[in-house]
Amino acid sequence: MKTRHRVVVIGGGFGGLAAAKALRRAPVQVTLVDRQAHHLFQPLLYQVATGVLSQGNVAPPLRDILRHQHNTDVVLAEVDEVDLERRIVRCALLDRTWELAYDSLIVAAGSAQSYFGHDEFADHAPGMKTVDDALEVRGRIFGAFELAELEEDAARRAAWMTFVVVGAGPTGVEMAGQIAELSRYSLRSNFSRIDSATARIVLLDAAPRILQSFDEHLAQRAAAKLGQMGVEIRTSTLVTGMDAAGIDLQTRNGAERLAAMTKVWSAGVQASPLGRLLAAQAGVEPMRSGQIPVESDCTLPGHPEVFVVGDLMALGRLPGLAEVAIQSGRHAASQIRRRLAGDAQARPFRYRDLGSLAAVSRYYAIGERGRTRVWGFAGWLIWLVVHLTFLTGFKNRASALFHWTISFFGRSRPERTITAQQVFARQALRGGALRG
Amino acid sequence: MKTRHRVVVIGGGFGGLAAAKALRRAPVQVTLVDRQAHHLFQPLLYQVATGVLSQGNVAPPLRDILRHQHNTDVVLAEVDEVDLERRIVRCALLDRTWELAYDSLIVAAGSAQSYFGHDEFADHAPGMKTVDDALEVRGRIFGAFELAELEEDAARRAAWMTFVVVGAGPTGVEMAGQIAELSRYSLRSNFSRIDSATARIVLLDAAPRILQSFDEHLAQRAAAKLGQMGVEIRTSTLVTGMDAAGIDLQTRNGAERLAAMTKVWSAGVQASPLGRLLAAQAGVEPMRSGQIPVESDCTLPGHPEVFVVGDLMALGRLPGLAEVAIQSGRHAASQIRRRLAGDAQARPFRYRDLGSLAAVSRYYAIGERGRTRVWGFAGWLIWLVVHLTFLTGFKNRASALFHWTISFFGRSRPERTITAQQVFARQALRGGALRG
Repeated sequence: MKTRHRVVVIGGGFGGLAAAKALRRAPVQVTLVDRQAHHLFQPLLYQVATGVLSQGNVAPPLRDILRHQHNTDVVLAEVDEVDLERRIVRCALLDRTWELAYDSLIVAAGSAQSYFGHDEFADHAPGMKTVDDALEVRGRIFGAFELAELEEDAARRAAWMTFVVVGAGPTGVEMAGQIAELSRYSLRSNFSRIDSATARIVLLDAAPRILQSFDEHLAQRAAAKLGQMGVEIRTSTLVTGMDAAGIDLQTRNGAERLAAMTKVWSAGVQASPLGRLLAAQAGVEPMRSGQIPVESDCTLPGHPEVFVVGDLMALGRLPGLAEVAIQSGRHAASQIRRRLAGDAQARPFRYRDLGSLAAVSRYYAIGERGRTRVWGFAGWLIWLVVHLTFLTGFKNRASALFHWTISFFGRSRPERTITAQQVFARQALRGGALRG
Repeated sequence: MKTRHRVVVIGGGFGGLAAAKALRRAPVQVTLVDRQAHHLFQPLLYQVATGVLSQGNVAPPLRDILRHQHNTDVVLAEVDEVDLERRIVRCALLDRTWELAYDSLIVAAGSAQSYFGHDEFADHAPGMKTVDDALEVRGRIFGAFELAELEEDAARRAAWMTFVVVGAGPTGVEMAGQIAELSRYSLRSNFSRIDSATARIVLLDAAPRILQSFDEHLAQRAAAKLGQMGVEIRTSTLVTGMDAAGIDLQTRNGAERLAAMTKVWSAGVQASPLGRLLAAQAGVEPMRSGQIPVESDCTLPGHPEVFVVGDLMALGRLPGLAEVAIQSGRHAASQIRRRLAGDAQARPFRYRDLGSLAAVSRYYAIGERGRTRVWGFAGWLIWLVVHLTFLTGFKNRASALFHWTISFFGRSRPERTITAQQVFARQALRGGALRG
């Protein structure tokens, strides 16, 4: 008996999960490898950080999602290496290492936060890419109000009450909007010595405007809404340094220091290091971001059995969106299915733009699709429906809707709990002198 | 103008929170000090550990609970010392220390896990007293199945599939029951190489029977139900040693070694160290458990202005229940109110026994109140109503009910997400050689 065609999928994010699901009825044996046990609905991670959602809402276990898919195994492991010649993926977990042989490989390893060469910023400004990041940011945000409440020195109190979000893409905008909402509404009457509503929220970007990927008029509307909510927008502003107590900026008017204990980084991404490893073996030059240039059908040049999808793939000027990852993952799966059915012709991947959305505050979002633009409450309703539809699994959808009802109508935050390991101890360890 | 009577409450658990709430309309200024920002509904902590509830469901922020209580401040700090003579509480947070002066003091500092002199067990068998504990246990339980799935050696796989719960009080019984449920039902079809339903769950106790505080017939019913679910009960069994890979036991038949990677400790509690500090100053002898013997009105001998309530209080043979803490906290508050109204007579605290409950599995709980006993589905309905009633805040009630609907009807676990910091890294660091 001939063994089944073996497909290894590296990464259980949007791209890898979509590929694995699309192979459900194919005559293949699928192995999905990820170093986390869960899929992650990254577009809502900022809501975990700001106390709206629990980690369970956005990070369902991969095994549970795929439990009824009998041709698919989930392996929890870190991929160390891919041997393109022997067609083997080397994995490790703790002190164990092992090999997975493949006939087809789908690499959907995604991207990590990029600090543009300043990795030391990571200690002071966590990113927004993992559940750990989100819980740490949650601890820092809510912890900052606690410490402001205790602080007697006015300047230090102001530093605890200042929140800087670096990077004004959708995640940065959503994060700044949520910090504004929680300080203005959710935390109201919680403190005795401080007025949480006076928190200063600064949204920085090196670009001349926020939401660069959006239409300019929409971005202006979002900026106006953020301004109304009290978010200070600083564009054309570069971050040149950072420490526990503040952030150094380079603006058009010269250098400036901002005293701020809490910083969040959402400025850039870099492709998974697996990209460079693969590129070197295949003899292709990776992009500066670490992405791999692929053929029009998403395959690695010279290796039609290897697909690179999602954030790791450089193809045209496709943006780093969940939707690109999902569609390219499905494309890889359909190519594999076709080949096994005897159709060897490479079909180019065509991205169907479903548009993009950004939620500025409760009841206010912007969105565009082709030439259609939407904003305000209408945009927010679309945001709500789209996010509910795309959340994985009925129970996560129901649970998120429930949490949103509490948060948006009640202006309350059901998930504010911070643990000892998240907050003060870690902040003290990392930041050195907390008192600046 | 005379300043208001100052009440300092140490601890935001059941006792301290009940006391603070009962002072809502009293002509006093209340300061509630806790080292955590949240209250904790400890009786449901085992559900956070087993993926049913999120931490937000059981740990609402103290500030949020008390936000409309204008005579009350919440201070996040660790209490280092109480100066009974000067009537001052010394607090610290990070590198700051400060003093809180009181006219009346309510000490509700509660209890921590006790390892009966074997603190080294804590590395291998986390307790069940804090949100951090629960999240760590969650990571260990779900992580053990992941590692069993990867393990090729049969003996080691069996060790990953063996779960030992030490201590067969209500928490131990509930924990063992939940591990059985999740392995038999929730994780079904999640794994390819292992059958999660074959997990071995061992519930140990040094006493000759489980649920010592309950009526013997009820405990027998609970034991029979646990047996049906596949939980092995080992009574009259002492733990003599522990390491990453297993646990050493002393039974009636001699010494025995059990290979088990996952251990949970719910065997004993010890009073907060604050108890001994207070006892030394007041010149009273603390109990062996660290509890402080108090007068019949819950005051510290010789110090009618200091109340000791909840787990820290030794008064008659009252059990360490949430209800005792709540009632004694309220009693302290009412004594303070009466004194301020000119009634100086000390009234003894009388505990009104509302009974106790333990949930063995979904749809099966036992309960007793006075001579009335209840078990099975009827017991479970009472368990459900009581826990919903006592959960703090409408949104936590609604949210818990929602999670229970998913978990009990659907047999699913909405909160299985484990973070990097919780699991493998920590386990590896702590346990040394994970491969035993």
